[in-house]
Amino acid sequence: MRLGFFSGTGPEGKGLSLRFAAAGASVVLGSRDLQRASRAADACNTVLGEPLILGMENRELFSACNIIFLAVPYARAVDAVVDARPFLHAGHILVDVTVPLSFRGGGVEYLEQEGGSNSEIIARQLPAGIPLVAAFKTIPAGVLARLDAQLNCDVFVCGDDAEAKRSVLEAASLIPSLRPLDAGPLRSARILERMTALAAWLNLHYKSKGARYRIEGL
Amino acid sequence: MRLGFFSGTGPEGKGLSLRFAAAGASVVLGSRDLQRASRAADACNTVLGEPLILGMENRELFSACNIIFLAVPYARAVDAVVDARPFLHAGHILVDVTVPLSFRGGGVEYLEQEGGSNSEIIARQLPAGIPLVAAFKTIPAGVLARLDAQLNCDVFVCGDDAEAKRSVLEAASLIPSLRPLDAGPLRSARILERMTALAAWLNLHYKSKGARYRIEGL
Repeated sequence: MRLGFFSGTGPEGKGLSLRFAAAGASVVLGSRDLQRASRAADACNTVLGEPLILGMENRELFSACNIIFLAVPYARAVDAVVDARPFLHAGHILVDVTVPLSFRGGGVEYLEQEGGSNSEIIARQLPAGIPLVAAFKTIPAGVLARLDAQLNCDVFVCGDDAEAKRSVLEAASLIPSLRPLDAGPLRSARILERMTALAAWLNLHYKSKGARYRIEGL
Repeated sequence: MRLGFFSGTGPEGKGLSLRFAAAGASVVLGSRDLQRASRAADACNTVLGEPLILGMENRELFSACNIIFLAVPYARAVDAVVDARPFLHAGHILVDVTVPLSFRGGGVEYLEQEGGSNSEIIARQLPAGIPLVAAFKTIPAGVLARLDAQLNCDVFVCGDDAEAKRSVLEAASLIPSLRPLDAGPLRSARILERMTALAAWLNLHYKSKGARYRIEGL
């Protein structure tokens, strides 16, 4: 299992890379620009205390990794997939962690999507046979980045390809203090993206940064 | 604070009545039919071991209570509000606990609403000056009914009238092992209703009945 973070130099990409690398997974951080990728990987490796994460140009990710996280800002996800299309082949799994939120005017709002959810919109741009799995949408990047912080939450994983979903659930299970939950078909991204909006609202209202979900009673 | 459950003889109405009455609140259970209301109240009082809950005709609720829960099935909520309209007056707060779910074909689906959420649709039917608060949407009736079960979860309360929302948060705070959270404007019901669909899906998938939400990191 080799995990790649496409344009993964932002907070969510770095946070997830740190958690996965600390858990022993093979992790590659990608960017359009190799130097940028290497700098982000170096910064992560400094936190880890070991050179565990590799920086690479985005397009190189696809030969080095089988699970590719789209860790780009939500509005750039479709373009990122279009850029990635020539490099995708059977065996690749794409993981969408994006959430269409607006923070204008000091509040937070879920930007309702014509296609139901950002994940469903992205999935329509993929070549046939390349599965998209939505995951990690509800976990704040800041909490991921603090490796000493126990996550104590659930990661909701949804998708229409059962095998791809299983692979992502398995990858997620590597991370300690995180419980992976099968959240159903890709359509469930409609719920997960909105849940992130609620968590962001709670963070603003209760002056926190770490709101995340845990299911009781399963 | 006197809590009334309009058409509250179903599982959610009875579950909430039990929890509130056990917590010392004054609770009235309503039905169109007085005998039906009395029978449901008696059944609850047997569980409580004391005659704490009163059965009443629905229309009597409005003079006896200030916080009125609409505990009807989601599809009957608008009709219930239309029936209630003549009896509503300043000082009343309506609480909507409904969720538009379909369980056809062994699965569960959120029935997307033209008006955004069932709560927003209901709110449009209310006379001016009568606030609607959405709450308790994500807590399973079955767990509420088992008084010996610790809830260990959050109750999300949203609405556009700050004072009404505060009253419902205060009422909810009576119930032990439950944390009331301000979930923002009524529009957040779009999120809460969908979260219930996800919890129901998780219950089906993981063969449970008690899935409910808890926010970590606030």
